Amino acid sequence: MQPRNATVAVIGAGDYIGAEIAKKFAAEGFTVFAGRRNGEKLAPLVAEIEAAGGKIVARSLDARKEDEVTAFLNDADAHAPLEVTIFNVGANVNFPILETTDRVFRKVWEMACWAGFVSGRESARLMLARGQGKIFFTGATASLRGGSGFAAFASAKFGLRAVAQSMARELMPKNIHVAHLIIDSGVDTAWVRERREQMFGKDALANPDLLMPPAAVAGAYWQLYQQPKSAWTFEMEIRPYGEKW
Amino acid sequence: MQPRNATVAVIGAGDYIGAEIAKKFAAEGFTVFAGRRNGEKLAPLVAEIEAAGGKIVARSLDARKEDEVTAFLNDADAHAPLEVTIFNVGANVNFPILETTDRVFRKVWEMACWAGFVSGRESARLMLARGQGKIFFTGATASLRGGSGFAAFASAKFGLRAVAQSMARELMPKNIHVAHLIIDSGVDTAWVRERREQMFGKDALANPDLLMPPAAVAGAYWQLYQQPKSAWTFEMEIRPYGEKW
Amino acid sequence: MQPRNATVAVIGAGDYIGAEIAKKFAAEGFTVFAGRRNGEKLAPLVAEIEAAGGKIVARSLDARKEDEVTAFLNDADAHAPLEVTIFNVGANVNFPILETTDRVFRKVWEMACWAGFVSGRESARLMLARGQGKIFFTGATASLRGGSGFAAFASAKFGLRAVAQSMARELMPKNIHVAHLIIDSGVDTAWVRERREQMFGKDALANPDLLMPPAAVAGAYWQLYQQPKSAWTFEMEIRPYGEKW
Amino acid sequence: MQPRNATVAVIGAGDYIGAEIAKKFAAEGFTVFAGRRNGEKLAPLVAEIEAAGGKIVARSLDARKEDEVTAFLNDADAHAPLEVTIFNVGANVNFPILETTDRVFRKVWEMACWAGFVSGRESARLMLARGQGKIFFTGATASLRGGSGFAAFASAKFGLRAVAQSMARELMPKNIHVAHLIIDSGVDTAWVRERREQMFGKDALANPDLLMPPAAVAGAYWQLYQQPKSAWTFEMEIRPYGEKW
Repeated sequence: MQPRNATVAVIGAGDYIGAEIAKKFAAEGFTVFAGRRNGEKLAPLVAEIEAAGGKIVARSLDARKEDEVTAFLNDADAHAPLEVTIFNVGANVNFPILETTDRVFRKVWEMACWAGFVSGRESARLMLARGQGKIFFTGATASLRGGSGFAAFASAKFGLRAVAQSMARELMPKNIHVAHLIIDSGVDTAWVRERREQMFGKDALANPDLLMPPAAVAGAYWQLYQQPKSAWTFEMEIRPYGEKW
Repeated sequence: MQPRNATVAVIGAGDYIGAEIAKKFAAEGFTVFAGRRNGEKLAPLVAEIEAAGGKIVARSLDARKEDEVTAFLNDADAHAPLEVTIFNVGANVNFPILETTDRVFRKVWEMACWAGFVSGRESARLMLARGQGKIFFTGATASLRGGSGFAAFASAKFGLRAVAQSMARELMPKNIHVAHLIIDSGVDTAWVRERREQMFGKDALANPDLLMPPAAVAGAYWQLYQQPKSAWTFEMEIRPYGEKW
Repeated sequence: MQPRNATVAVIGAGDYIGAEIAKKFAAEGFTVFAGRRNGEKLAPLVAEIEAAGGKIVARSLDARKEDEVTAFLNDADAHAPLEVTIFNVGANVNFPILETTDRVFRKVWEMACWAGFVSGRESARLMLARGQGKIFFTGATASLRGGSGFAAFASAKFGLRAVAQSMARELMPKNIHVAHLIIDSGVDTAWVRERREQMFGKDALANPDLLMPPAAVAGAYWQLYQQPKSAWTFEMEIRPYGEKW
Repeated sequence: MQPRNATVAVIGAGDYIGAEIAKKFAAEGFTVFAGRRNGEKLAPLVAEIEAAGGKIVARSLDARKEDEVTAFLNDADAHAPLEVTIFNVGANVNFPILETTDRVFRKVWEMACWAGFVSGRESARLMLARGQGKIFFTGATASLRGGSGFAAFASAKFGLRAVAQSMARELMPKNIHVAHLIIDSGVDTAWVRERREQMFGKDALANPDLLMPPAAVAGAYWQLYQQPKSAWTFEMEIRPYGEKW
């Protein structure tokens, strides 16, 4: 591994997608700044990355708090130039409209949209000062399509997509690559497997081709990272080949 | 005018679009419940509608407060069955991403998206109990497209569209018509005229075909109202014929 | 009925949607020029409209032939000013990609897209000379979404939508209203009922709320016709309230 | 270079994008089957690829002729298994609607849509027999948006997108990767440079960041080629960082 004098900030460094992104960029020589609500849960990831010779700084981070996000990004940039920010906070919930409480609607928005706005803006502030950078956002099927039971989640994801699109139109001409990666399938996590089994029975998991491996998401982000500025993608969607869409 | 035993709630009853919607539905025999931040400003509208023989109840309403919205809608429904709710709160702002403050981003969302969610949900609660109703939302160009300077506004309008779409998919099979009307142009208001003149000079107003007359928006809502349930529209856009798009 | 000195051309005047459009516009005082492949099949429609005091000219018309379309529209315009053209030729087929023959692909395109282009262009020629007019196109779910088995049909309907959108952007500023009406459901015809029953059994027809009544489509076109030029819709979709989408 | 026992078919192997795709895949060890209207013009490309140690078969190919396309693909597959087909035939024209002749409309469709359908179907036939393969289509801004003057071109490109989307939904679960790459900018060719200079003057070329280098398109296709089947992209757009969109 060739170390780079650059950091990648992973906001929403959960056990699956976030962790795989961290491992991929660490393996490529970045120092990873990984933030999640309960930073202690990052211990195994830190151990794994360091055992492989990579560099990672793990932090507790409530991405809904603008001062925490700002400090996190500034620290990352002080460590080594912040080259990439990946916003990966999820908040998938499903409630009929009458049971979607004010609290749920607001919290889902704060996690999936508001936090993305703050993360994007503060990353842009640091990157514009250096004249370059990359800000990537994780989207979902619900970024493109509302659905019964999805008023809260889709509203937040639509909102995040508008943030990403507005930032892309403003910042790409200033050499900041902004992209929105849409994961159009369930992701292969313990929670999703459990939920599908509850809903559809054991057979729901019989087809391994319908869940997105977290490492494949990291691979897609790495593709976006590698694009030359003469041919940047703002939006692409990925899905397992067996997915119906 | 044939009076109806029905109310229409206009949330965001501003001087232009909201006022025209109120006049149109009053002229069709509805009792109008009109709410806006400063209810006193509704006095001329009340006078005009009453002079024409219509019925209107004017209220101060902060649509960002769920208890105020709930009370407003419950009062409307207690007066006569709530048949239609039209959510028309606007919040158009334009700031570069670095100058989009936390306060602005949150406030625009609360006005244009959150308030729409609460208005929609509480209307649905009353309408589902009666097995029918109509909930209409006012959209904008920014509902479909983010843009430089529009992170806050587009994010809120995208979010509102997701609320509308999710409600439509859940509620239309339950006989609640949910629609999202996209106004794809500037609206002919004193504020827009002034701003255009500042930005582009007097000539910007020379072409009368580029601004949407508020009464035409009311007309479009009336078309949606008249659709039979065998052929409901969820989304349509309107623009003046001279508009470039 | 108040007669108007105006014709409406209905290209693709089939037994269902086309016939209802013809009846509606005849009832509003237009002279209807109705064209379909086998003009003799229009006899019952002619009888019905004339019995109601309306005016209709029925013609055999192969809409894939540019000279026939041109003559049809010129004749209509010579009769009385051509105010509205409604292009309603359908060509729904479903084949796996390997079984979609060259002949099918080309024929579906000629019927659903090419004929629409010619109809639109020749209508525009006549209408631009008068400085006004309306050109409406019938779209379908497949106008927005390709699907397994729909390569031929979706390709033609996507293509027609592009024609409509390109014409709208060019012609609306010249006072020609161009619109694209998307019917997002099955239409209630003998053929659709039969096919659904074959595919899903008698129960498929138990729910009357899932098929679009042809008269409702005519009603939607009438709404588009009535819009003032200060607030024209280019695209709207209609579906029965029970439809899942 | 590690030779592979695999061919890539490039249909529409023009001097720019097609040539770069050919060079990239040849450099990765594929045998390239390159087809364009006048196969003699491929001589310099053949010389360049062979000088670099790559393998290429150059053919005259009228992609509008189904028998020629079928023979071309069958020959490629007989040479070595057809692993990838890239359909890259362009046909950009711009005419006001009244000046868009029948001949132009039909020819543009045959080149940009019909030829793509035939190329895709015949590739699928060969690939399904082997249980794997990749079929990629080149899209443009006009694939998503009609415009004044673009009735012919946008109609064909919309139609091609529908073919690609329908094939993707049918074939991806059968292990055939179908993708649609949207080039949302002008491409850096002699013809585009000349046209821009004529339209906008020398200054139109002052900004090198507004034209897509053909090699960057080849790079994007290579990214699509490398995606694992657990995370396939159907659609992504690329544009130079300075592009306004």
